[in-house]
Amino acid sequence: MRGAYIGRFQPFHKGHLAALKWILEREDEVVLIIGSAQYSHAIDNPFTLGERIEMVWNVLKEEKLLNRVIIAGVPDTDGQHDLWVALVKSFAPPFERVYSNDPLTRLLFEEAGYEVFTIPFFEREKYNATRIRKLIASGEKWEDFVPEPVAEVIKNLKGDARLRRLYGWG
Amino acid sequence: MRGAYIGRFQPFHKGHLAALKWILEREDEVVLIIGSAQYSHAIDNPFTLGERIEMVWNVLKEEKLLNRVIIAGVPDTDGQHDLWVALVKSFAPPFERVYSNDPLTRLLFEEAGYEVFTIPFFEREKYNATRIRKLIASGEKWEDFVPEPVAEVIKNLKGDARLRRLYGWG
Amino acid sequence: MRGAYIGRFQPFHKGHLAALKWILEREDEVVLIIGSAQYSHAIDNPFTLGERIEMVWNVLKEEKLLNRVIIAGVPDTDGQHDLWVALVKSFAPPFERVYSNDPLTRLLFEEAGYEVFTIPFFEREKYNATRIRKLIASGEKWEDFVPEPVAEVIKNLKGDARLRRLYGWG
Amino acid sequence: MRGAYIGRFQPFHKGHLAALKWILEREDEVVLIIGSAQYSHAIDNPFTLGERIEMVWNVLKEEKLLNRVIIAGVPDTDGQHDLWVALVKSFAPPFERVYSNDPLTRLLFEEAGYEVFTIPFFEREKYNATRIRKLIASGEKWEDFVPEPVAEVIKNLKGDARLRRLYGWG
Amino acid sequence: MRGAYIGRFQPFHKGHLAALKWILEREDEVVLIIGSAQYSHAIDNPFTLGERIEMVWNVLKEEKLLNRVIIAGVPDTDGQHDLWVALVKSFAPPFERVYSNDPLTRLLFEEAGYEVFTIPFFEREKYNATRIRKLIASGEKWEDFVPEPVAEVIKNLKGDARLRRLYGWG
Amino acid sequence: MRGAYIGRFQPFHKGHLAALKWILEREDEVVLIIGSAQYSHAIDNPFTLGERIEMVWNVLKEEKLLNRVIIAGVPDTDGQHDLWVALVKSFAPPFERVYSNDPLTRLLFEEAGYEVFTIPFFEREKYNATRIRKLIASGEKWEDFVPEPVAEVIKNLKGDARLRRLYGWG
Repeated sequence: MRGAYIGRFQPFHKGHLAALKWILEREDEVVLIIGSAQYSHAIDNPFTLGERIEMVWNVLKEEKLLNRVIIAGVPDTDGQHDLWVALVKSFAPPFERVYSNDPLTRLLFEEAGYEVFTIPFFEREKYNATRIRKLIASGEKWEDFVPEPVAEVIKNLKGDARLRRLYGWG
Repeated sequence: MRGAYIGRFQPFHKGHLAALKWILEREDEVVLIIGSAQYSHAIDNPFTLGERIEMVWNVLKEEKLLNRVIIAGVPDTDGQHDLWVALVKSFAPPFERVYSNDPLTRLLFEEAGYEVFTIPFFEREKYNATRIRKLIASGEKWEDFVPEPVAEVIKNLKGDARLRRLYGWG
Repeated sequence: MRGAYIGRFQPFHKGHLAALKWILEREDEVVLIIGSAQYSHAIDNPFTLGERIEMVWNVLKEEKLLNRVIIAGVPDTDGQHDLWVALVKSFAPPFERVYSNDPLTRLLFEEAGYEVFTIPFFEREKYNATRIRKLIASGEKWEDFVPEPVAEVIKNLKGDARLRRLYGWG
Repeated sequence: MRGAYIGRFQPFHKGHLAALKWILEREDEVVLIIGSAQYSHAIDNPFTLGERIEMVWNVLKEEKLLNRVIIAGVPDTDGQHDLWVALVKSFAPPFERVYSNDPLTRLLFEEAGYEVFTIPFFEREKYNATRIRKLIASGEKWEDFVPEPVAEVIKNLKGDARLRRLYGWG
Repeated sequence: MRGAYIGRFQPFHKGHLAALKWILEREDEVVLIIGSAQYSHAIDNPFTLGERIEMVWNVLKEEKLLNRVIIAGVPDTDGQHDLWVALVKSFAPPFERVYSNDPLTRLLFEEAGYEVFTIPFFEREKYNATRIRKLIASGEKWEDFVPEPVAEVIKNLKGDARLRRLYGWG
Repeated sequence: MRGAYIGRFQPFHKGHLAALKWILEREDEVVLIIGSAQYSHAIDNPFTLGERIEMVWNVLKEEKLLNRVIIAGVPDTDGQHDLWVALVKSFAPPFERVYSNDPLTRLLFEEAGYEVFTIPFFEREKYNATRIRKLIASGEKWEDFVPEPVAEVIKNLKGDARLRRLYGWG
């Protein structure tokens, strides 16, 4: 059986990795779907799809999970929400069940007849993408909250400078 | 060093696999870019991006290449060719060099300053996507021209019936 | 003479019906234009165009108005407001005059040379789409504020559950 | 039960009307779906969606069918065929079964799990939209091949002059 | 009075310049509208909008016409022809009359109520954009058919190499 | 050498003109890029691209700067910021350096390898587009804050009435 794990992964942090492992206990394979694929260089969406694929792939490689997790990017449908499930089905390999905590994602997949599962949070106060983006922008210590390969990717692409600029702090 | 291998992979056949291996002799890692991501259900583009990711990922798994090849889908820019290199750079992880035999892809990446390499053909008369699509549609023997996991994917999604319908033959 | 009655009709309520009848006293026929056609599954735009056509058509049938009112859906132009009048003229049958209380709609049609009429409100405190959407989401009594066929459509498509989810209340 | 009758109706001719009546013998209500909604002023798509709604609505009025047929326009998805069924479901009221002779429409709805019915042709050599467009453009007698209200709409909007121009004949 | 001179100008050649001067005898000012703005790197549309603005502006400067000719680029509307006049009016400064020999442009502006004028051809067998593109691609003498500043722009951007590649000749 | 001066110019005011002259002391020629080209009829973007080109061109004519400044309009990329630099390069003539105070514009061009210069503000409390739009809407004295040809354009197109309507004040 295959489950879809849907998120924006801006960036992919340790909470995401814990969630992925939790899903992998329940599914043979996981399609990891990176949503809002077309957005980048915004406070809530700083990283491009390519940069996020790089982050996730490097983590999967280190964790030896490449043979159980398939990465797929899916753009938003610009408010035309009724097309989004169809777009996911077109852009991602097939899956039977959906894992997401986003209310709209859950609603859309449930209306389309999918079984949708809630993912437990893993130390949410620490592993929270909004908080981590702010830490990166402010120059505080953030590296511990993301898997090590993600920290490397962010540093290589100068993501800290980009976030500082987006926050208007540098 | 990383190279990008760009194609539509409609479907991914044994010639593509030979080319991928040839590139892997020259590069540490390959970003396999599936172009025309948004098109499907057409004679020249029968398979969705998700179906093509499924094909390629299953082959990489069998060939034990998942830890050297990253898959990324990139839509066409609807004639706005001047944006296409930027879209590839946004949707795919970073790479230094490009491998493609498509004249427009080569032109666009060369104008953008990339080194672009020609890929040798591997028994092109046999391993040719147009020919393979026609064989599938006509019900002739086609399974030998694609890696075995690809044949399975096509059969599971009833790709032969789809192609027959698209050709107006059934 | 024909007038256009332009709104989003999220959902079509008794105030809309009263307005329609008021316009029908002034015009031979009415083109009822459902705007923001492409949006759905959002707090302000919960229902799809198809669901809204269903609501309006069922009301027109019950009210025996199908032979005087033509329904047409028109998408938004994503901030490119200067194209919107042209899109309305392309997607809707011809009309001479416009009825709308939306300031932007009024501005755009007036700049295009149309005569634009204000619609009197009918017990606006009761018949107000924002208020009705909130009532539906909260599980309070809302059925009296919409024509009976609209209540049926909303119940059939489980619109109350959808709205609760969109409001984050269920 | 409700069936969807899908076509481009460029223009709506007597063959379409006969087909519609044939479907109405099999279904309680019909959703008449006008496809390629966004195209106009082309040889194959001369009339706007609004003009086509006007044609069909006037015919339905004369035939006293307005209380059994709902009109809905649906744009093409620009080659992204995998989204088209979702767009139809979003833009049109709900239906259970599909009537169409277009191979791609049939394929897409069948893959989505719909029962799709073939429509018998009614004197196809006479009632054929391509042929009727050419007759209109060339100034030959064409009025007998469309219902009378359609002929009126085409004359009022000077559709004959438009077609002549599109064909390069005037 | 102001006239609009509408074309694609791929590239801007001596026939275009003669036409522009002919229009300037009839109008105080000319809005030179570069259509199909978004297309480039195709056989029929090799040059970007920016490259075409550069060509025209350099010619206007040499001809001392900058104070009577305003340049504006306007994208195509992807088959949604009914929006095109509105897009031109949004993207270009106001004008009263239209000069164009393109049948669709003429039809659309006439339906919108504009007076549309035919432009006399100036040695059409010589000054013809299709022919000039082919000459550039084939490496034959082409410089005499375009104003000197255009030839310079094309050489600077290596337009000859681009066209050769697009034609598959190099 | 050529610099790009990037802004929205809603409307083009005396601060913009001072900035332009300041840039012209540093560059041979300036490409004046009007961003957010597709937006209009909104509080922050009241004027169409065509209206803004008209404003700037008339000022350049009066200031005798038409032979040193090239105007080019560039649409936004709807949140797909990673394509914006490519779109600017496609829609505008070539330039070497960038002048802008907008943080996102600066970030995007710097990541693309451009040298980006800050523009000194010229009496910012007076020459500020947001403030000027509000003055126009409120009917207060605003004409002194824009070059005289801009005031004329705004009056001719009844921009004051438009702004009042957009602000909901008339």
